[in-house]
Amino acid sequence: MSELLTGLDERIGGIRELYEDLHRNPELSFQEVRTAEVLARRLREAGFEVTTGVGGTGVVGVLRNGDEPGVLLRADMDALPVREIEAVDYRSTATGTGPDGDETPVMHACGHDTHMAALIAAAEQLAERREHWSGTVLAVCQPAEEVGGGARAMLEDGFLERFPAFDVALGQHIASAPSEHLYVRPGTFMAAADSLRVTVHGRGGHGAQPQATVDPIVIASSIVLRLQTVVAREISPEEVAVVTVAAVHAGSKENVIPATAELKLNVRTFDPAVRETVLEAIGRIVRHEAAAAGAPREPDIEPINSFPLLVNDVDAARRIGAAFTERFGAEFVHEPPAKAGSEDFGAFGTAAGVPSVFWNFGGFDPAHYPDPAKPNAAVAAGLAPGNHSPEFVPTGLEPTLRRAAAAMVTAAGLWLA
Amino acid sequence: MSELLTGLDERIGGIRELYEDLHRNPELSFQEVRTAEVLARRLREAGFEVTTGVGGTGVVGVLRNGDEPGVLLRADMDALPVREIEAVDYRSTATGTGPDGDETPVMHACGHDTHMAALIAAAEQLAERREHWSGTVLAVCQPAEEVGGGARAMLEDGFLERFPAFDVALGQHIASAPSEHLYVRPGTFMAAADSLRVTVHGRGGHGAQPQATVDPIVIASSIVLRLQTVVAREISPEEVAVVTVAAVHAGSKENVIPATAELKLNVRTFDPAVRETVLEAIGRIVRHEAAAAGAPREPDIEPINSFPLLVNDVDAARRIGAAFTERFGAEFVHEPPAKAGSEDFGAFGTAAGVPSVFWNFGGFDPAHYPDPAKPNAAVAAGLAPGNHSPEFVPTGLEPTLRRAAAAMVTAAGLWLA
Amino acid sequence: MSELLTGLDERIGGIRELYEDLHRNPELSFQEVRTAEVLARRLREAGFEVTTGVGGTGVVGVLRNGDEPGVLLRADMDALPVREIEAVDYRSTATGTGPDGDETPVMHACGHDTHMAALIAAAEQLAERREHWSGTVLAVCQPAEEVGGGARAMLEDGFLERFPAFDVALGQHIASAPSEHLYVRPGTFMAAADSLRVTVHGRGGHGAQPQATVDPIVIASSIVLRLQTVVAREISPEEVAVVTVAAVHAGSKENVIPATAELKLNVRTFDPAVRETVLEAIGRIVRHEAAAAGAPREPDIEPINSFPLLVNDVDAARRIGAAFTERFGAEFVHEPPAKAGSEDFGAFGTAAGVPSVFWNFGGFDPAHYPDPAKPNAAVAAGLAPGNHSPEFVPTGLEPTLRRAAAAMVTAAGLWLA
Amino acid sequence: MSELLTGLDERIGGIRELYEDLHRNPELSFQEVRTAEVLARRLREAGFEVTTGVGGTGVVGVLRNGDEPGVLLRADMDALPVREIEAVDYRSTATGTGPDGDETPVMHACGHDTHMAALIAAAEQLAERREHWSGTVLAVCQPAEEVGGGARAMLEDGFLERFPAFDVALGQHIASAPSEHLYVRPGTFMAAADSLRVTVHGRGGHGAQPQATVDPIVIASSIVLRLQTVVAREISPEEVAVVTVAAVHAGSKENVIPATAELKLNVRTFDPAVRETVLEAIGRIVRHEAAAAGAPREPDIEPINSFPLLVNDVDAARRIGAAFTERFGAEFVHEPPAKAGSEDFGAFGTAAGVPSVFWNFGGFDPAHYPDPAKPNAAVAAGLAPGNHSPEFVPTGLEPTLRRAAAAMVTAAGLWLA
Repeated sequence: MSELLTGLDERIGGIRELYEDLHRNPELSFQEVRTAEVLARRLREAGFEVTTGVGGTGVVGVLRNGDEPGVLLRADMDALPVREIEAVDYRSTATGTGPDGDETPVMHACGHDTHMAALIAAAEQLAERREHWSGTVLAVCQPAEEVGGGARAMLEDGFLERFPAFDVALGQHIASAPSEHLYVRPGTFMAAADSLRVTVHGRGGHGAQPQATVDPIVIASSIVLRLQTVVAREISPEEVAVVTVAAVHAGSKENVIPATAELKLNVRTFDPAVRETVLEAIGRIVRHEAAAAGAPREPDIEPINSFPLLVNDVDAARRIGAAFTERFGAEFVHEPPAKAGSEDFGAFGTAAGVPSVFWNFGGFDPAHYPDPAKPNAAVAAGLAPGNHSPEFVPTGLEPTLRRAAAAMVTAAGLWLA
Repeated sequence: MSELLTGLDERIGGIRELYEDLHRNPELSFQEVRTAEVLARRLREAGFEVTTGVGGTGVVGVLRNGDEPGVLLRADMDALPVREIEAVDYRSTATGTGPDGDETPVMHACGHDTHMAALIAAAEQLAERREHWSGTVLAVCQPAEEVGGGARAMLEDGFLERFPAFDVALGQHIASAPSEHLYVRPGTFMAAADSLRVTVHGRGGHGAQPQATVDPIVIASSIVLRLQTVVAREISPEEVAVVTVAAVHAGSKENVIPATAELKLNVRTFDPAVRETVLEAIGRIVRHEAAAAGAPREPDIEPINSFPLLVNDVDAARRIGAAFTERFGAEFVHEPPAKAGSEDFGAFGTAAGVPSVFWNFGGFDPAHYPDPAKPNAAVAAGLAPGNHSPEFVPTGLEPTLRRAAAAMVTAAGLWLA
Repeated sequence: MSELLTGLDERIGGIRELYEDLHRNPELSFQEVRTAEVLARRLREAGFEVTTGVGGTGVVGVLRNGDEPGVLLRADMDALPVREIEAVDYRSTATGTGPDGDETPVMHACGHDTHMAALIAAAEQLAERREHWSGTVLAVCQPAEEVGGGARAMLEDGFLERFPAFDVALGQHIASAPSEHLYVRPGTFMAAADSLRVTVHGRGGHGAQPQATVDPIVIASSIVLRLQTVVAREISPEEVAVVTVAAVHAGSKENVIPATAELKLNVRTFDPAVRETVLEAIGRIVRHEAAAAGAPREPDIEPINSFPLLVNDVDAARRIGAAFTERFGAEFVHEPPAKAGSEDFGAFGTAAGVPSVFWNFGGFDPAHYPDPAKPNAAVAAGLAPGNHSPEFVPTGLEPTLRRAAAAMVTAAGLWLA
Repeated sequence: MSELLTGLDERIGGIRELYEDLHRNPELSFQEVRTAEVLARRLREAGFEVTTGVGGTGVVGVLRNGDEPGVLLRADMDALPVREIEAVDYRSTATGTGPDGDETPVMHACGHDTHMAALIAAAEQLAERREHWSGTVLAVCQPAEEVGGGARAMLEDGFLERFPAFDVALGQHIASAPSEHLYVRPGTFMAAADSLRVTVHGRGGHGAQPQATVDPIVIASSIVLRLQTVVAREISPEEVAVVTVAAVHAGSKENVIPATAELKLNVRTFDPAVRETVLEAIGRIVRHEAAAAGAPREPDIEPINSFPLLVNDVDAARRIGAAFTERFGAEFVHEPPAKAGSEDFGAFGTAAGVPSVFWNFGGFDPAHYPDPAKPNAAVAAGLAPGNHSPEFVPTGLEPTLRRAAAAMVTAAGLWLA
């Protein structure tokens, strides 16, 4: 295994340049055109057979070095509509077209640039050290993780048919945590998230003549209140679920009852059966609260997006945790609690029916984290920036990239070496 | 007309004795056995052809004095489960069997004893003065007005087939108002009232395991809140409706979720179309609020009782008002607003398809009523007792009975004389 | 009185030209600059002493012809953001700046142009026939009736101090009703309307971490549902009130709980005490529903606009109704029911403590109205256009203007002649 | 240690007789008079210094055998208002006075008789084998565990001052689980439970005149719905809490709005901070939902009962689990999940500031439990009776008592030997 890592550290200078270039040129979900070009070129130069335009802007590099086993390494490419603060000289001043069609500032505020840099570092290292392992490596650069559709788009674009089979899928994400620290959790790691748009159909009219209307605002309000019972009454106290109505919009003039009301819901669950129960209950409540008012037609319930539950294969995650501990020292490896956040990485392993493991790596000055095992406490206390914040710019950059690249090679080596 | 009234005042001494006897011996709804005997005997002695046991304890006396026209005069016989205060020496100490099977004190707290006494006075007077009119008089002593079933019971017992036809139905009710004052309203006079029992079916269980239950208390609470929208949103602001949930019962032990919840509803309306709208909306809301919770079966909605709208024939009521004014003086005759209270007298006229008129007469010391035209204001101000109160014992007894008897004869005379 | 009207009919040709000019050049509320100039010039030419810029764009013309009595005649000047259909050759193609700052088509879709034309006709007629009456006439051209602030703006600009006293205030409004018909109601004629903006303050946060937030959407929904109890429980069934939540807006992204929610409410009442009860209840419910959630601060409740109850002086309205009947014939004069619509004309009489009367005149082809006494039925049946519709262009124009001008002179003559 | 247990098994015949006597003569909470006498006599005969009447009917036996350490062994004495089925010849036919003053059948349906029998067996064994240990044993027979007040009553009766200090408190409870199996959980074992009675004060009145009332049923319903937000919005998704409204009672007659409504609430939590949050939120919601309706006074919120969180000292519980495993075999010792049920045993250790450990022992035929590690699954599947059921009569009686007595001596021996 240590043969695989030899020389990796020297590679980091160039990888840092790649990182800074990506950071300066962030692109929004499904708009990662320049990013894809840069990554495709690097993979080609390293000897990978590269396919672009997979699921929109996705890039897949394949390095065959013997048939088996296959290892999928994934990084996500998209940035966020956030205006970066002035903290580094490679700061982004880019803009992009937001979901409403407006121009918006764009920033890698979730650190996907570190994922890509580490993936390229690992891919180049594995390509150069190919005499020390055998098998097939798939380097997957996925679009649109932030809106939850990128992995699915690649899979729907024939990913499994078009590319070699793989025995494990590996991915990683930067966290607000100290540089060089790694966080691996066997089993359920991140929540399933389902976002829904509910459109309630009433009948509009004059505010002084409610009897001639079916008031959609009363229906929407009844739905919001009744949805509270899903978590409070329909889920076992030991199970975890969140049902949030995060937006409601209806009407404009103060004396005109509108014809419709729109709600946006967000659901988080950690168990497929609980997810089914919650979604079924939402549908039931929405329909019957509208019917209780005599609504002229059923509300529309449309998915906005959906993140699957992210479950790490227990054996594979334990092996990776043990390898990290052996390689980097126990003080740098932690088992975190499950997170309510969501991620679509798991779709690859699920689709292929193979194990997948996703872990976090820290990216910030350790001085901000009194207890490296509990980095969330530091974020909650305001000591360190959280993901999606305009201040989410890694401070311990080279150690971070070195460790992330080494972690990816180490984990891949468990299958390849 | 004045021939009809001649000698009526002298009759009042004996009528007062009848009144005191009835007041001392009140009987609850459908239990008016002794009361019916007393009234039947008086009517027979006056020359009426008497049938008892009509619709349970009802009494019908018929006096034929020429074929046409027919005039129905009605008094109701039942008392209330109220304990009388000690105000008069003919106070009731009677008891009866209440709806729950318990023994309860009984009192004529709604003054039906004055209705009966005035009816007998009028019947005896008309019998004695029969040379001054022609036609047929039906003296109807109805059971069970308080629970809303007496008129219907008599009608379902073949009233229309068994007794002579009538051209008008007349009835009167004592009010908390000054003695000798009369209150006649053309058109809608009293509300329709519908009482419903709603039984919500959930699924019971342990209070710490809500997910294994369907919580009927949450359903019942949702129903109560949503029912507020019936009046607030589904009825025109210009229409009148009341929807009251007057009782809710569910559960006993603090850690056991019950299987059912029971609601009692009361609905008041002044328009048949509004009544239909309200009852339809209640059914819709009750069903869908239960379904929204995934209830294992639909709630039961059962009528408890129902009072029809009481609508006075406009022409007949105006004629009666004019006759009262001519006879007793304009200062004693008023046109009151419609009342949210309810009464089943209207069922006779409705069933026969003939006009009916129902009016109020005052029964208390005028000193308590600063403005005789607005007696309700005195009740609201605590100056005078309201119906159903344990203090509802007429204070101006002889003038009250005299005026009520004379009003009945006067109104009947409009058709008979 | 007939002396006052002599020659009025001949004047209508010129008045029609004025009307068409005003109709072609409509202006939005508080933007009635050209309109005010036209009216001011006509009043000056007729011999009125004219003040402009009263309360913004308001115009006041005073004609002194003896000291007493004073009679205020009012017309409103503003038009609506409505695009007129192509029905007449004097159709408006004007645009104006809407409340959001956008350019919008403008149309006299509520017929204020007929009010102004009739007022000028009456003013000119009175000026010319001044030997037949004595007193002082105030011709008031009010801005911004549609948004409810024009009368108040004029009063706050010193109207009562700057202009002669008056003994009665008279105004009229075109209705969707047959030409030449007049509608006068003694007592309460139009509802008070109050519009409120409620801003609920919660605490925003991540949709998966509700415990760190105070969810303003749950608060807003609780407010909406609880507000239903105001009409259903807190107002007497015999009283009329409407509480409508006509708009609710909160949040945007489906996984972000917003910090605030905004509601727009509209309240209609016909009685000042009921209005007080309703507004007090709204404030109470809004505050406590927010406090129930532990909101970090009280909601803001701000008035958007407010229309006072419009109550016609009973005696004055009856005198006017009788004069109309005598002059125009009973078949052309009706007593309509109270309307849930609102109007700020009443502010002048209220401020001065003198009677005011406001009536409606019809303006459309009688063929559309099967029963002239119930023109609303024709509108409800789709036989005739309603106010604010793009089709609200008077079809019987000359008869309409003649009758409206004559009605104004006739009513004024009751005080002046 | 094995010296302590020598001869214990032979003692079980007599203990079984004690058990059958207690089973035949169950007594309700705080009425354990005969039970206390029986236990006090047995403890005295064994050489304990006995105090009765502690906290009502509580019994404390002290055996001093050297000063330190002190070990508290606790059994609870009360039975339940349950009618026993006919399954054994020592079946209870006893009756007692229930909380409503009615006579009710009584049964040891929660197996406290086994706790007492095992405690006496352990106490007698320790007394007889006193040369093999040193220290002080407190045998505590506690009243009224079922209603949650017994431990507190003993503590408030000066328990800590009147009796020797102790270094650990030990208790055990029979479970529906196979005989001879033991269940020990370090850390949080049973939920805190708080039951509350909420009395809402409105203003009663006639169902047709809601405006004269403050409808307590609307308030109660609003409270029930709003309480759903406590778990759904105010508690972290990772925390466990249950808020159940298990009873609501208001009103009787269908047309009378009652003056008050009563709710019974049950709250379960596993964390003191969560408990505080939930109770604070309940108080806030109850108060403000009443105030939103203009209630004439604040609702009353009274505790019905309260069970503290039962937390086993982690080290002590692990030591006991290890000792059980060594003594009885790993296949008989399990670590169960935390239970939502509640128990007041923890009050002794908490009050004294010393560790306490509470464990379960099985009491039924192993044939009913396919997986001894998951006995709840058998109960859920209907294979075995649950606590409080009329069938909860131990079937494997002698092995059960033997194992429970040996477990108590073994655990005590860890401190005493």
